[in-house]
Amino acid sequence: MDFTLSDEQRMIYEYGKSLVKQFDRAYWVEKARQRAFPAEMYQQAADDGFVGMMVDEKYGGAGLGMLEMALLQEGLSNEGIPLLSLIVGATMSMSLISDHGTEEQKQAYLPGACRGDIRFCFAVTEADAGTNTINVTSLTRSVKDKGRYVLNGRKTFITDAECAEYMIVVTRSTPLKEAQRKTDGFTLVLIDTKVAGIEVHPIDISIEVPEDKYTVFFDDVDVGPENIIGEVDRGFEILFESLNPERIIISAVCCGLGRYALNRAVEYANERVVFNGPIGAYQALQHPLARGKTEIEMASLMMRKAAWLFDRGEPCGSESNMAKYASSEAGIYAVDAALQCFGGNGFTKEYGIFDIYPIVRLFRTAPLNSEMVLNYIAERDLGLPRSY
Amino acid sequence: MDFTLSDEQRMIYEYGKSLVKQFDRAYWVEKARQRAFPAEMYQQAADDGFVGMMVDEKYGGAGLGMLEMALLQEGLSNEGIPLLSLIVGATMSMSLISDHGTEEQKQAYLPGACRGDIRFCFAVTEADAGTNTINVTSLTRSVKDKGRYVLNGRKTFITDAECAEYMIVVTRSTPLKEAQRKTDGFTLVLIDTKVAGIEVHPIDISIEVPEDKYTVFFDDVDVGPENIIGEVDRGFEILFESLNPERIIISAVCCGLGRYALNRAVEYANERVVFNGPIGAYQALQHPLARGKTEIEMASLMMRKAAWLFDRGEPCGSESNMAKYASSEAGIYAVDAALQCFGGNGFTKEYGIFDIYPIVRLFRTAPLNSEMVLNYIAERDLGLPRSY
Amino acid sequence: MDFTLSDEQRMIYEYGKSLVKQFDRAYWVEKARQRAFPAEMYQQAADDGFVGMMVDEKYGGAGLGMLEMALLQEGLSNEGIPLLSLIVGATMSMSLISDHGTEEQKQAYLPGACRGDIRFCFAVTEADAGTNTINVTSLTRSVKDKGRYVLNGRKTFITDAECAEYMIVVTRSTPLKEAQRKTDGFTLVLIDTKVAGIEVHPIDISIEVPEDKYTVFFDDVDVGPENIIGEVDRGFEILFESLNPERIIISAVCCGLGRYALNRAVEYANERVVFNGPIGAYQALQHPLARGKTEIEMASLMMRKAAWLFDRGEPCGSESNMAKYASSEAGIYAVDAALQCFGGNGFTKEYGIFDIYPIVRLFRTAPLNSEMVLNYIAERDLGLPRSY
Amino acid sequence: MDFTLSDEQRMIYEYGKSLVKQFDRAYWVEKARQRAFPAEMYQQAADDGFVGMMVDEKYGGAGLGMLEMALLQEGLSNEGIPLLSLIVGATMSMSLISDHGTEEQKQAYLPGACRGDIRFCFAVTEADAGTNTINVTSLTRSVKDKGRYVLNGRKTFITDAECAEYMIVVTRSTPLKEAQRKTDGFTLVLIDTKVAGIEVHPIDISIEVPEDKYTVFFDDVDVGPENIIGEVDRGFEILFESLNPERIIISAVCCGLGRYALNRAVEYANERVVFNGPIGAYQALQHPLARGKTEIEMASLMMRKAAWLFDRGEPCGSESNMAKYASSEAGIYAVDAALQCFGGNGFTKEYGIFDIYPIVRLFRTAPLNSEMVLNYIAERDLGLPRSY
Repeated sequence: MDFTLSDEQRMIYEYGKSLVKQFDRAYWVEKARQRAFPAEMYQQAADDGFVGMMVDEKYGGAGLGMLEMALLQEGLSNEGIPLLSLIVGATMSMSLISDHGTEEQKQAYLPGACRGDIRFCFAVTEADAGTNTINVTSLTRSVKDKGRYVLNGRKTFITDAECAEYMIVVTRSTPLKEAQRKTDGFTLVLIDTKVAGIEVHPIDISIEVPEDKYTVFFDDVDVGPENIIGEVDRGFEILFESLNPERIIISAVCCGLGRYALNRAVEYANERVVFNGPIGAYQALQHPLARGKTEIEMASLMMRKAAWLFDRGEPCGSESNMAKYASSEAGIYAVDAALQCFGGNGFTKEYGIFDIYPIVRLFRTAPLNSEMVLNYIAERDLGLPRSY
Repeated sequence: MDFTLSDEQRMIYEYGKSLVKQFDRAYWVEKARQRAFPAEMYQQAADDGFVGMMVDEKYGGAGLGMLEMALLQEGLSNEGIPLLSLIVGATMSMSLISDHGTEEQKQAYLPGACRGDIRFCFAVTEADAGTNTINVTSLTRSVKDKGRYVLNGRKTFITDAECAEYMIVVTRSTPLKEAQRKTDGFTLVLIDTKVAGIEVHPIDISIEVPEDKYTVFFDDVDVGPENIIGEVDRGFEILFESLNPERIIISAVCCGLGRYALNRAVEYANERVVFNGPIGAYQALQHPLARGKTEIEMASLMMRKAAWLFDRGEPCGSESNMAKYASSEAGIYAVDAALQCFGGNGFTKEYGIFDIYPIVRLFRTAPLNSEMVLNYIAERDLGLPRSY
Repeated sequence: MDFTLSDEQRMIYEYGKSLVKQFDRAYWVEKARQRAFPAEMYQQAADDGFVGMMVDEKYGGAGLGMLEMALLQEGLSNEGIPLLSLIVGATMSMSLISDHGTEEQKQAYLPGACRGDIRFCFAVTEADAGTNTINVTSLTRSVKDKGRYVLNGRKTFITDAECAEYMIVVTRSTPLKEAQRKTDGFTLVLIDTKVAGIEVHPIDISIEVPEDKYTVFFDDVDVGPENIIGEVDRGFEILFESLNPERIIISAVCCGLGRYALNRAVEYANERVVFNGPIGAYQALQHPLARGKTEIEMASLMMRKAAWLFDRGEPCGSESNMAKYASSEAGIYAVDAALQCFGGNGFTKEYGIFDIYPIVRLFRTAPLNSEMVLNYIAERDLGLPRSY
Repeated sequence: MDFTLSDEQRMIYEYGKSLVKQFDRAYWVEKARQRAFPAEMYQQAADDGFVGMMVDEKYGGAGLGMLEMALLQEGLSNEGIPLLSLIVGATMSMSLISDHGTEEQKQAYLPGACRGDIRFCFAVTEADAGTNTINVTSLTRSVKDKGRYVLNGRKTFITDAECAEYMIVVTRSTPLKEAQRKTDGFTLVLIDTKVAGIEVHPIDISIEVPEDKYTVFFDDVDVGPENIIGEVDRGFEILFESLNPERIIISAVCCGLGRYALNRAVEYANERVVFNGPIGAYQALQHPLARGKTEIEMASLMMRKAAWLFDRGEPCGSESNMAKYASSEAGIYAVDAALQCFGGNGFTKEYGIFDIYPIVRLFRTAPLNSEMVLNYIAERDLGLPRSY
């Protein structure tokens, strides 16, 4: 066993400490209030070579892995400045193109993406997924033009759909009833977000983050072979590969934000005096901080293990799900413990502690809720029967 | 023992069900987004005789007690439309004037308050309370005018300070070092919020409620004997009487909002189908709702017991603190359980479930945090040593 | 509303305080270690008129209700000396006979039971209940003797089966497949535990209580009309009536044992000094005690409400289940919080704190586990779908 | 980073799987009921080279480290057969002698200890430690014999004091008031448990483990230079080195026992059918198992990290304390979740699930309670003020 980071990994993990000097928490919060993409900060990360972290050097990337990407995000989040668009963009979309794109697609999208010139959103979720297969976003053969397709349907909770240049859309190309297995018949489509037939509507969300969420409508959108990632009808297998990375990088955000909140609380509790001496000496405030720290550090270890396994090409489903479950719980616990130290001040915009809460809380529910994560662990890791 | 409500109490408890037809959750949320006082709704409650619930009929009130006031607030909160300004106004301020005001003060303020024409805010909290006695809001004898006083200092987190016509201010009239006991030397001042020397600044808070919070500055504000409630230097005893009512009515809000969230979740979970059958059949979602319900109902019982004791003039400190602790915890738990049922939708403004959370969460921290509440129970109820 | 106990109820609640002078915790623990029925203590309670609490005065009882029975048990448990055999005996069996027995049965069993001369056990649970209907304890018409029946089968976890004189057995008299509804076809049989064909085997249990548990085997036991309680095939309705009382009285045990443990811990924490001053001043120990106290008092309120409703003949399923759930959780929490104050000493037989734990923990699981209790609340109180 | 075990480490970790074929859980439980040292099992482990794991090969050991010792214990505990005497013996005492003994001491004790011929107990705890320095076990210069010492005092909760051949005793050789720092003036004494002046009395404990606990009395016990480990008055520094190993190996026990309980529960829940299908399909039972698994695996990672750091000679206080805290909590949670699956059966000696609980629960309290562990993390890791 070896629990040390390499020098390069440590440098990546600590990148947040230098980036925060340029783009601090106040910058991030301001962008979040405006619901404006943190373009300058993103561009700086791209310029510093971090957006293309997982892309082959041949296409302008750093040729590193999931562990490095997770360390980057964890380090940024430690400073209170997570780059949430790295989740669906640099981690998920760019890896899909790297691993399953054609040479043309790689050359078309990856160098620009690594430079920060183009960004991706990722459209999976549908409002009634699983129940109303008729409305599932569908990809059908075009009647007008042989060899082309038509995309119709609707996706929801799509992060960055307005500002991203491209979108990867998970579609059903063979109806459920004609598919042999439920997971057959999916196709991934990479499409320009500005083409005819796409409309996006912002969703008004009770969480202030710079990255906004949208409902996306597809109305007879033209799709050609150049827009297909991988093979037609084989999209599920490809999609599946990106689920563990998504869980891993979300874990990194939760661990980092939890640490950020704890650090803020420790500073405050060491200074704030109400009765005798600093409030940090009261066990009722102190012990939850210590427990929060413990849970964050353990979740972080599990997250790194999952990333490390992923990079080795080994199964990492259990570890990724455990990390996602534990990190969101640890993040929630840590932010709440921090908040309680600040008293009423924690709820003000001036101190901004409560404002960290909705983000970590969201990750108990999205993109996959903790109940589904526990179902996974119960079935796949423990060997219990399916419960739903 | 008798656990039934009288017919009148039941009618009061169910008032929310009729008021919500006129002023529904959407009205409340809209006011909250605008940070605008829900004036029409408040006026309706006053017209229906509920604002003056605890005021003697002689002064235009209903001559009822704390239990009825709590039932009113619980019933409103059950519908998602708590009238938070009833806490510091109708429950605390009006009771103080009723119990300790002069006949002139009662006639001057109570009938108008019962009609809804005038409202009160209540200024207790200071930013560095207990540590920096020099800055405590102080009441000193006026050098210019014998028999009058001068008010200086600063209060923070004062609800409704802008829109209320009057303010009750807790001041120190004898410096701590000259007081025999720490609780000596306080005086309550009832003052017009628009007089010279008072300035209010809104505090930007991460919680959307119609009732806003302010920092209030007092700069040589003129205070005469007509502004003093009770006796000079004896304000602490008076203030102390309003602490249990405050905890009781906050409990009522938490129980009610918890029930509101649970009811919304039950409806949703009975309808929403993702895999097989409604999601309400999954124990991972269902059991937290059932546990939340149980905790709400128990906290509500304790809250009602505390109010009932208060109305009988019996000690109710343990019960009020237990109710406050348990209700805020139960409310938090219930809202969170409800939120988890809604998935990502719960975080949208359209469904508005997450938006209930900050209010119940605030009550774990304010006006007295749960740690201080547990200190009270430990010392006063269990007989353990002081921990702080 | 009225939260006071009547003078008689208060006297009953405080009976434990006098009984404990004769039969103290050490007596109880000694009986528990020996797995010996606490006969002298039981007899004293009978002599003092408490065993027949719920039996009509005409048959030697006190003619009181469930609330008084629960207060008795709560008061005994407050002192660490619960009389667990009152659960299946005085509360469940004697009430069944009172409410559904023939005049002959009442005269035959109740006066002796009130005097403490005869006791009952109650046989419901089967090892594979619900799944293997063939082995359910069955009551079939005797081929030898018209009008008589034959009892065959096996029951498990039957408290006091060895030392009780009589047993009430829940049997299936009409096979499941012939019954219109699943709940049809049950019959309650009251039978001498020493008749031919009954064998009892103790179950080795990891919980030290005076009342032992047994597996009971029935092998062609002769049953006549004189042994049937209520009507043949209508036993379920009768049995159903005793479920809420069972949950209520178990709640009383949990609340009382929780209080007993807390009181012990408060005494210890006020005296024990390790660093500076008594350990009771440390919030990490103190706050869990305060929280435990709060949860116990709330659960106790709910339990009393359930008993009060039961005595009025009103529906009390929600309240009884909530009380059972909350009391067992509160008892577990309180005992654990107490234990932590005692450090290593808490695990010694000398201090005996850990030894309280298995009993309250058992009541999370038995006689109905908390999961089934939550199912009940979810379905019946909240209106959610059945989850199992 | 590298999360893989070496082949040798994996073999050590899996040793439990082969040892359990000879000495299974039933053997362990039987020894525990008899409070008899599991001598045959211990001897087998010694024969297989595992007792001397951390001892230099020169003295008959395997020359491995803390990580290997922890893996051994974790693997044994996974099978339900922890060798608890390895904690104070092979891990703590033998390492102290290895690291601080004279050459004579090493040769005298280590080879025999590695062979399993002699065992050690470790006497630290005193009943009133920290408060009554007069009764602290003291080592004073002998008046009779220059150069020798006299040992007086009393230790409590000393595991294996009766059956171990030798005892390491932590004594105060310079009174607290004469010491410059509180931690000065301690001396470690290694002494034959059978010498004149030592008396041991078993403590009756509510936890069934093979290793018993004792109070040990020292009455003018003769101590010579040959009995001193390290330097006189410098014992604290030496003792301090063994605290992290103790926390690490206790973590290993908790992780392993938690896994053992979960595995038993998974088997049972996959087979047991009550309503429709196996009970393992109910989320109310399944999700706690999945959460327990997650917490165990995370705690295990932290424990391994702590051991790995220890073996590298790096600071591991935070990691060891986090591992101890988290492992005991995870073990408690996992055993409880397992227990709930078994229903009433879990409380029987036949199934023996509840019987696992007291051991993991003890480790929340002993040898250092979780409150002190959180104090450590708060102060040393987070930099908060001392709270006690």
